[in-house]
Amino acid sequence: MSNYNELISRVKELSVIESIGGLLAWDQETFMPPKGAQLRSESLAYLSKTAHSALINPEMGSLLDSLENDNLTDIESANIREIRRSYDKATKLPTSLVEEMARHKSHALQIWQKARAENDFTQFAPALEKNLDLACQAAEHYGYEENIYDAMLDIYEQGMTVSQLDLLFAGLRKEIVPLVKAIGESTSKPDLTFLKSTSFSEEGQRDFSLRVAKAIGFDFEGGRMDTSTHPFCSGAGPDDVRFTTRYDESFPFGCLYGVMHETGHGLYEQGLSREHEGTPLGKAVSLGVHESQSRLWENVVGRSREFWNHWLSDFCEVFPDVGDLDLDTIHCAVNNVEPSLIRVEADEATYNLHIMIRYEVEKALVNGNVKVNDLPQFWNSQMENYLGITPPDDAQGVLQDIHWSMGAFGYFPTYTLGNLYASQLWEATLRDIPDLPSLISRGETQPLLDWMRTNIHIHGSRWEPDDLILQATGEKPSSDAFIRYLKQKFQHLYNLS
Amino acid sequence: MSNYNELISRVKELSVIESIGGLLAWDQETFMPPKGAQLRSESLAYLSKTAHSALINPEMGSLLDSLENDNLTDIESANIREIRRSYDKATKLPTSLVEEMARHKSHALQIWQKARAENDFTQFAPALEKNLDLACQAAEHYGYEENIYDAMLDIYEQGMTVSQLDLLFAGLRKEIVPLVKAIGESTSKPDLTFLKSTSFSEEGQRDFSLRVAKAIGFDFEGGRMDTSTHPFCSGAGPDDVRFTTRYDESFPFGCLYGVMHETGHGLYEQGLSREHEGTPLGKAVSLGVHESQSRLWENVVGRSREFWNHWLSDFCEVFPDVGDLDLDTIHCAVNNVEPSLIRVEADEATYNLHIMIRYEVEKALVNGNVKVNDLPQFWNSQMENYLGITPPDDAQGVLQDIHWSMGAFGYFPTYTLGNLYASQLWEATLRDIPDLPSLISRGETQPLLDWMRTNIHIHGSRWEPDDLILQATGEKPSSDAFIRYLKQKFQHLYNLS
Repeated sequence: MSNYNELISRVKELSVIESIGGLLAWDQETFMPPKGAQLRSESLAYLSKTAHSALINPEMGSLLDSLENDNLTDIESANIREIRRSYDKATKLPTSLVEEMARHKSHALQIWQKARAENDFTQFAPALEKNLDLACQAAEHYGYEENIYDAMLDIYEQGMTVSQLDLLFAGLRKEIVPLVKAIGESTSKPDLTFLKSTSFSEEGQRDFSLRVAKAIGFDFEGGRMDTSTHPFCSGAGPDDVRFTTRYDESFPFGCLYGVMHETGHGLYEQGLSREHEGTPLGKAVSLGVHESQSRLWENVVGRSREFWNHWLSDFCEVFPDVGDLDLDTIHCAVNNVEPSLIRVEADEATYNLHIMIRYEVEKALVNGNVKVNDLPQFWNSQMENYLGITPPDDAQGVLQDIHWSMGAFGYFPTYTLGNLYASQLWEATLRDIPDLPSLISRGETQPLLDWMRTNIHIHGSRWEPDDLILQATGEKPSSDAFIRYLKQKFQHLYNLS
Repeated sequence: MSNYNELISRVKELSVIESIGGLLAWDQETFMPPKGAQLRSESLAYLSKTAHSALINPEMGSLLDSLENDNLTDIESANIREIRRSYDKATKLPTSLVEEMARHKSHALQIWQKARAENDFTQFAPALEKNLDLACQAAEHYGYEENIYDAMLDIYEQGMTVSQLDLLFAGLRKEIVPLVKAIGESTSKPDLTFLKSTSFSEEGQRDFSLRVAKAIGFDFEGGRMDTSTHPFCSGAGPDDVRFTTRYDESFPFGCLYGVMHETGHGLYEQGLSREHEGTPLGKAVSLGVHESQSRLWENVVGRSREFWNHWLSDFCEVFPDVGDLDLDTIHCAVNNVEPSLIRVEADEATYNLHIMIRYEVEKALVNGNVKVNDLPQFWNSQMENYLGITPPDDAQGVLQDIHWSMGAFGYFPTYTLGNLYASQLWEATLRDIPDLPSLISRGETQPLLDWMRTNIHIHGSRWEPDDLILQATGEKPSSDAFIRYLKQKFQHLYNLS
């Protein structure tokens, strides 16, 4: 066997181990009986340990060394680049640090849950301090050029840096803060009475969202939809993609847009290359690009007037109690903008302000510009700056997200990158398929999916995220398209000048 | 670490790998989308290979060798005995034979499916011949004292031999064949009109059988019930036990007794020792003992008059269309005896005759006393001898079971052993708790479960099956209790003299 084939065969075995872990993690959130938790965490730990040992095997390093000077095809080079990236990430950290991080993570998670439930930041502060210290130690091992926070950003979106994000986010902030203010002052407000007067059965929500997921192309022969406390999309592989949703009978759009969001993630997975399955070329490239697919279907498609032009009659058929609902009313209702406290409940216009707050907080923490103990105050002042509101307590403020309890610093920006990429991809699609809006208004979304299949999904990790966006759209990641999209949409919806 | 602890730590890791495989296999039969099959078989193959490599590691052998001369506690000796058994089973076969068996198994399975669908034994004959040859080769490697078939029986019920089974089965046959004949000639027949005139909704069947499963002690905090084509009980471990059922709206007892059967298996798993979890002392001892638990709850309890005395009112509440059903009618209906073609649909009295036929067939095949090509004829003559009926075709005859296509020779007798053990255990329980029938007639089954917990479940594989039965009942495996049980029950039900 050639060295390349030997390396690929090891990587494919790693992928099988990861896919087993994916299935176990899915089951843990969906069907596992409560008493199964102890064995499940042992099983997941066994799989992590086995995959980690296989990855850091010195023979992997030797194979990579031997191949990097070889005459390789583009495909081979791309696989080698990504395998090297994983190998370096896994080998740069001392085992003692990896173990300490794993140990502290589950401890910190428990403390955070209690602190949030009891609305007491001081309980969480020491655990957060420790998580921050461990993340900084890891970042030093990974290495960086300008800012220690770069090493953390790179974990979740390869190549992303503070200098790039500062630029992207400054442009965004400059435009979105006044837009949200203008919306708040507008006298045009969505009419939400149909929501308040109707109960939306779980069965009906399931039926309607399954219809939508199927119609936009999710293949249920190679995937499933189930229920969990927190919706997610995972599974075992591109032919076994599993996403979840949840139901609130007083509000049908949480489920619907949750399903469209997770379906977007699922469509990416189902569109990956089978030829390269189990290797980086057959894997999604980054969290940001993944989020672009979920946000595209959830927001750009799902909250458009064209989408509802096609789906309103189905919606009224499934929920006859909404009465004679018209297109304007539902289109405005699903685009209700209002500054709010909780990120995961935020609308399309304010969402990225929540992310920017977290980005500023992380950057300041990691660089020592704010102390953990001062975080609640810092958080609240940022909320006032960006959103014009102040949390009444820390549970609804600085304690709301799980990420920091898991030591995940640098993750949040990928959510906004996903929104930016989605708008860039949407503009590029419109250039290639100018009548896409009218197709969507007839329920014909296949051309949009085909475009994503060809320009994004099939390439897997062939290029780094910013190169992929460049290849697909003709431009590097930028906030311009997103700003154009938001302004056009909300100026119209809220009658702004 | 002492050698014993080192060995146990390896065995516990093996157990984690097996438990992961258990979960994946469960998912494959319940929730996996069809296109996930390819990756699933790779994942299961990876887990098998990993577990096999860990088991045959020569260091396992050295650890066993070093410990067998040590001064060990009873517990330690029992664990060592069982680990040695697994190690020997895994190392005695040459790798080439293991690989050939695995390869041929999936091939033979496909051929059998086609042959059965097309009712054509000649298609299956060459694959069966090959499976038989491979099983005999394996048996020679395992070794045996008297009969090559002993080495196959020992795979599924350690220590079981032809000479023991010949004795058990001869006694059974002598009593059951005339009993079944007398039942057939009896003018007392169950009144099944309530079955024919009612539809039993899936929802109702699910509700009723869940009530029963809970009431007899299955802990749904540590397990689940789902749906699959072929009911089974598996899962990840004693705190994550998963069983399945299926629904036929024209016949509620397939689901109910399927659930009671699988619940019996599940109760055994849930009753295993947590102190010894992951080691042989924390594992079920054999297929026969497992089957004794399922048959106990399904037949001895579930088809008793006492059971229905308590449950009839619930049954009529869930299925009001059955009308004014009385205790005699339902008790007779669930004990309808009739010679039939298909083993898995057979009643309690004829079931073991089906097993004896398979035992005679396997023994003859393995010892060269019948040729594969003559099997349909041999099968049909046995059906005539034991049951007095002749299959109209091979699909309903010699081709009906999956076992031989998987190379599982020696498995069938464990089903009958389960029935025999169940009756022996029932008699022993009655000696300790004489008012058990009247407790059951009030729905109080906890004392029966407690007895099984104390006398069977908690011991895991501490003793070999026949010693466990001896410890629990005071006698070695025997058919006497089962014959007494059957005669008493059916002579009464069918008004036999």
